[in-house]
Amino acid sequence: MTIPAITSTSNETLSAALDRAINNKTKPLGSLGMLEALAKQIGLVQNSTALSITEPAILVFAGDHGVVAEGISAYPQDVTWQMVENFLAQGAAINVFAKQNQCALHVIDAGVNHEFGPRDGLLNRKVAPGTRNFAQEPAMTAQQCATALEHGMALAAGLPGNVVGFGEMGIGNTTAAAALMHKLTSLPVAQCVGAGTGLSSEGILHKQRVIEAAVEKHASVTAPLDVLATFGGFEIAMMAGAMLKAAERRKVLLIDGFIVTSALLAAAKLQPNILDYCVFAHCSDESGHRRMLDYLGARPLLQLGLRLGEGTGGALALPLLHAAVNFVNQMATFESAQVSEKSE
Amino acid sequence: MTIPAITSTSNETLSAALDRAINNKTKPLGSLGMLEALAKQIGLVQNSTALSITEPAILVFAGDHGVVAEGISAYPQDVTWQMVENFLAQGAAINVFAKQNQCALHVIDAGVNHEFGPRDGLLNRKVAPGTRNFAQEPAMTAQQCATALEHGMALAAGLPGNVVGFGEMGIGNTTAAAALMHKLTSLPVAQCVGAGTGLSSEGILHKQRVIEAAVEKHASVTAPLDVLATFGGFEIAMMAGAMLKAAERRKVLLIDGFIVTSALLAAAKLQPNILDYCVFAHCSDESGHRRMLDYLGARPLLQLGLRLGEGTGGALALPLLHAAVNFVNQMATFESAQVSEKSE
Repeated sequence: MTIPAITSTSNETLSAALDRAINNKTKPLGSLGMLEALAKQIGLVQNSTALSITEPAILVFAGDHGVVAEGISAYPQDVTWQMVENFLAQGAAINVFAKQNQCALHVIDAGVNHEFGPRDGLLNRKVAPGTRNFAQEPAMTAQQCATALEHGMALAAGLPGNVVGFGEMGIGNTTAAAALMHKLTSLPVAQCVGAGTGLSSEGILHKQRVIEAAVEKHASVTAPLDVLATFGGFEIAMMAGAMLKAAERRKVLLIDGFIVTSALLAAAKLQPNILDYCVFAHCSDESGHRRMLDYLGARPLLQLGLRLGEGTGGALALPLLHAAVNFVNQMATFESAQVSEKSE
Repeated sequence: MTIPAITSTSNETLSAALDRAINNKTKPLGSLGMLEALAKQIGLVQNSTALSITEPAILVFAGDHGVVAEGISAYPQDVTWQMVENFLAQGAAINVFAKQNQCALHVIDAGVNHEFGPRDGLLNRKVAPGTRNFAQEPAMTAQQCATALEHGMALAAGLPGNVVGFGEMGIGNTTAAAALMHKLTSLPVAQCVGAGTGLSSEGILHKQRVIEAAVEKHASVTAPLDVLATFGGFEIAMMAGAMLKAAERRKVLLIDGFIVTSALLAAAKLQPNILDYCVFAHCSDESGHRRMLDYLGARPLLQLGLRLGEGTGGALALPLLHAAVNFVNQMATFESAQVSEKSE
């Protein structure tokens, strides 16, 4: 397995040209706030002042987690496959929001503990029927982790568009993500753990204890890929692979919530330049996500108290990406509209 | 002139039915955050659990301000009519965002200091070619203010859809809005004044002094309609009238930034129930808007550092209203999708 090479998007000449294009529009300087920074970032990713969004897609990766045996989730494991069925039947939140915003949706079985059989609309990349319980042993073997990453890379390489969103489904995966966060940021476990799908404060404390014991058990694991294999999930590793390849292909990466950002943390340890390509869709209500974003120096577009996963934050933020591209492409300039400039 | 009667949307039975509809969707309880509160509010406004958004429209009111004679704006007054021309030519930010989000746009000359003549796409409701300088005398007569309110009411009454956004253009109108804010909230002028289209800190201080002197001069003016006439603008008063009528007709009101919210402050003093109908699109970067929102107990959907006006925040937030309506109408329930519920 080769980790894709990712170059920085830094480009002083292009950066200045984008600033000029943005500042000449008929609006007070800087008055479109974060949309201006977003437009500039998209231009740098696309290496052009002619911005575009073509065939945006969201990849939703599903996987199961052996650590559910420790009683760390408010929902039973069967909900993972049941929600995959719900995705295929167009009944989930991500279906509704992707459709509303004309975004393609691809559902991937990265490692669900269920036999779906061949199904229209489901991409079978199952590494295994769920990871092992990382409270007892590593969640994956190094080979399984590499396989997941490679599947992710191949999936991203096959996408026609220039914007890729990431989403996930997997009962237990906030536990995996919190463990990854602790290992990759060195923040205390207590600051990485949250309520997930709806744990009580007692449940959160139990989840914290399970993670603390597991990181103690696997204390010698420190290299990013080993951390990913030990604590991650198939959906998380496959996402990380897809992110790395998508950035190599100079696509815009639309980052959702807590679990998606944990995959990015791992990817960014392998290739720090990947952050140049990331648009952070929202700050999740899952405790810990704000700290992850701060760690990455990320400014999320939306703060709506979402904590649903599936890529819903990315789908909801997509119209803002269109707005950033459209104002650059469609607004008049002071000159073309014959509007007077600032008089001071 | 009769101020429209506006009833509260409070309805315990409907409220409980909306909670059930929202909570039965295949998602963790409360996991769609502010979108859930938004869906519920839309249901209460529409008096139904069958939510809809039909023919959304944004009204952009333009007007000039006599107080520009005091040197309180970074741009010359001619920019007001030049930007109206830009709206008509589809070159402004609001044109781009309204078009992107399939929102009708109506441009109204409420009182611009310019003779446009008959023009396609421009609604001529000019009360006068600009207000008087409130540093010297009341901005409008009581009759002019009533005429502006009545035009606004008639415009809102003529709209076919059930969502109305509000926007404005008027060089000098952050000064009028700051004066209104001070008079209607009793917050110190210094907390109401901001950079507008881009004043220096010296310019902001001058603007503050102009407002302080004016409120001293008109100290005896306290009734909301008198405050509106003394310090407001034709575009602000017309907006307030349109808001009152739109709420009476049980439409959802999409509130933009600092100036639009100042119009709502006046409307809410006349009819406090209007707030039940208001969706606050965003928190503007104009200093003072956050305090206005806090005063109204409002939670804005977006926080993107926008300070452009024109109704752009409303247009950008519209996809979130669609998302709120769509998840209620389109998502599967736990029962219909046969997804297991929470196990604790």
